[in-house]
Amino acid sequence: MTPEAVTAIGKRAEAMLDALALISADPGRLTRLYLTEEHRRAARLVAEWMRSAGLKVRMDAAGTVHGLLPAAGDGPLAGKRLLVGSHIDTVVDAGRYDGTFGVVAGILAVEELRRRSVALPFGLEVLAFGDEEGVRFPKTLIGSSVVAGALRDPMLDLTDAEGVTIRAALAAFGGDPDALDAEAYRPEDTLGYVEAHIEQGPVLERLGLPLGVVTSIAGQARFRIIVKGEAGHAGTVPMAIRRDALTAAAEMILAIEAIGMIFDIGHAGEEVARTAIVATVGEVKVLPGAGNVIPGEVRFSLDLRAAEDAVRVGAEAEIRQRIGEIAARRNVDAVVETVHEKPVATCAPAMVGRIGTAIGRVTGGEAHRMMSGAGHDGQAMCHLGPIGMIFVRCRGGISHNPAEYASPEDMGLAVVALVETIIATSG
Amino acid sequence: MTPEAVTAIGKRAEAMLDALALISADPGRLTRLYLTEEHRRAARLVAEWMRSAGLKVRMDAAGTVHGLLPAAGDGPLAGKRLLVGSHIDTVVDAGRYDGTFGVVAGILAVEELRRRSVALPFGLEVLAFGDEEGVRFPKTLIGSSVVAGALRDPMLDLTDAEGVTIRAALAAFGGDPDALDAEAYRPEDTLGYVEAHIEQGPVLERLGLPLGVVTSIAGQARFRIIVKGEAGHAGTVPMAIRRDALTAAAEMILAIEAIGMIFDIGHAGEEVARTAIVATVGEVKVLPGAGNVIPGEVRFSLDLRAAEDAVRVGAEAEIRQRIGEIAARRNVDAVVETVHEKPVATCAPAMVGRIGTAIGRVTGGEAHRMMSGAGHDGQAMCHLGPIGMIFVRCRGGISHNPAEYASPEDMGLAVVALVETIIATSG
Repeated sequence: MTPEAVTAIGKRAEAMLDALALISADPGRLTRLYLTEEHRRAARLVAEWMRSAGLKVRMDAAGTVHGLLPAAGDGPLAGKRLLVGSHIDTVVDAGRYDGTFGVVAGILAVEELRRRSVALPFGLEVLAFGDEEGVRFPKTLIGSSVVAGALRDPMLDLTDAEGVTIRAALAAFGGDPDALDAEAYRPEDTLGYVEAHIEQGPVLERLGLPLGVVTSIAGQARFRIIVKGEAGHAGTVPMAIRRDALTAAAEMILAIEAIGMIFDIGHAGEEVARTAIVATVGEVKVLPGAGNVIPGEVRFSLDLRAAEDAVRVGAEAEIRQRIGEIAARRNVDAVVETVHEKPVATCAPAMVGRIGTAIGRVTGGEAHRMMSGAGHDGQAMCHLGPIGMIFVRCRGGISHNPAEYASPEDMGLAVVALVETIIATSG
Repeated sequence: MTPEAVTAIGKRAEAMLDALALISADPGRLTRLYLTEEHRRAARLVAEWMRSAGLKVRMDAAGTVHGLLPAAGDGPLAGKRLLVGSHIDTVVDAGRYDGTFGVVAGILAVEELRRRSVALPFGLEVLAFGDEEGVRFPKTLIGSSVVAGALRDPMLDLTDAEGVTIRAALAAFGGDPDALDAEAYRPEDTLGYVEAHIEQGPVLERLGLPLGVVTSIAGQARFRIIVKGEAGHAGTVPMAIRRDALTAAAEMILAIEAIGMIFDIGHAGEEVARTAIVATVGEVKVLPGAGNVIPGEVRFSLDLRAAEDAVRVGAEAEIRQRIGEIAARRNVDAVVETVHEKPVATCAPAMVGRIGTAIGRVTGGEAHRMMSGAGHDGQAMCHLGPIGMIFVRCRGGISHNPAEYASPEDMGLAVVALVETIIATSG
């Protein structure tokens, strides 16, 4: 393919991402959470594109859109499917590439396969999951976990900030909370899962490479920390006898940051930034939350991710100990609850090989092998079969932010690398 | 009066406070903000009690309920009024004594004056202000400032969290945003303002005294601090290159606490806790506020109060400098906006003398002279004329908290001391 033809595909991807970015809960910024009206509208648009690409479309019980290109012929692989895709939910005030590009890339790959008149001996299915970010409910990867049969813990009674359960939200959306288990695909029918995604970090940009192949996805855990002190009048309780839940939480947040820095040994020693561990407090609720009342309670989130599970578990133990020490010294109570935990997900060597070869072909160089610091649907899909990921360079490493950007040139290359990977799977 | 008769008055106060505490925005906890439906219902109940006590009742343009006992006869003081009262708004999840007791005490004092057939040569007016706490709007003491003619800055366009302006809220409540200036009383018509209030601190309890006389109200200032860093993906931005607005804010909150401790020289050196300065961060908003996004912006409040204005101004300068240093070191932006500022309000020596004598008579001991660490309507009313305050012991020094408590015995003594103070004013 000529560079112009590749970039033309990337420009189509850009136009589709622009159209999806208009579907938001807030005017002027992109926020699209699981099982909302915005999710419904985005799912409809994706389904339309899938139908135009000649796919057989259905929505499953968890709200995931499936678009199937059936196998050509009835060879030995005709009963199996290769899955490609990503998610269409976003964080609050999000960028337009995270997740959605993988769905759009899957649809454009189907179009390119048809243009080349490739007859795949297996089914190819494009998936658009509705929940990867875990923003609305305290649970991530719901759509992919359902397809992978990896739903382990009861989750239907978890609630969003308004007290709506996943069960109720699913029913209102037109899903079926009681049919989730029945949606699971069988490993013996699955050839694997391939996802194209922006890197969301600075590595490829620093190396001057458009694409990379992921070798594993970092393990991650999320916690909820609840600190309880004593509320009181801001004017009359002397500083020295206060039991202020907020100043205690502030000290804990700084301790978490310091532990993240100390454990992040991978960064300082290497030329290319590769994060060995990251620790983030992103949500804080202060109660009662009035300017003239000493805070009686503070709840905050902790997101901990590491390239090795042992490093993450070690950092967690250190954080728990420091929180306990700070709470004891300040005479407040603190509880650390584990909300969810995912071990490192390793990409299948054969898949890494095929993707690496495909990247080499479309970029004319060696494929850079890299770790993903971000979580992805592959963490659930690896329970179903081999997974692989194509990373696309993004500007400044910025993601989860309106400034998120990947060029049409790089996105076009990613779609063509995905096509080559799909074709190589048949070989 | 017999102790039983005094306590009987306190028990009536308790029953009235219980009735007012049922009027709340939230079931199960007490929250009553300015110009809400709860405020309207509480104002109606207070107006009913005032009418039963024989007062002429009206609501002014700012929503303050006025109950007037006209002067007996037409002596030289007949054109003047002594004002008593407090406020009926509350903080979020409040106690039932703060403010409301002063209103109830005023009504019960009128009843006791009638029982004793006292003919006052001046008018006595009980006031129930609608906004002292400043929780709904970024402005405190609205009701008392209107009566005192102490409204200085334009405030009608200030908004609550939902974007409703004070102007719109006043109009919807039945007040008149354009008539506020016309409500101001004239200093030459006013004999002063006396307020009974729970102490909201631990001093009287530690001394074993039911009542105290206030000599001055601490100066206070409120600030809004806005910290701007850069949002980013929690999984892929290495710790060392983050511009996390929350960890920066956490460091600032700890610096504020430390400065409050260092400047609080009055506390350590004295047997009875007397706070020289207090610094409180009570409200924090983290944006975008998702568990897997590095915070890009944090806004928090600061409430600073001190017994001497010079101490408060010195602490403010120190806090501004430390915030600037932390922001520079962490490569984030920080702005400190002054929301409002009130200097120390001194109680009139003649008023302090009359209240002290009254407390001595009803308790049989010397009246304890003390500073108020909390803000009060007297800070506005001192612009109109001499102010005085009677403090009532409260359990554990706890206030702005459902555990707030004052005994019927102590409340009865406060009402009788208020009656003696009113009678002494005529002498």
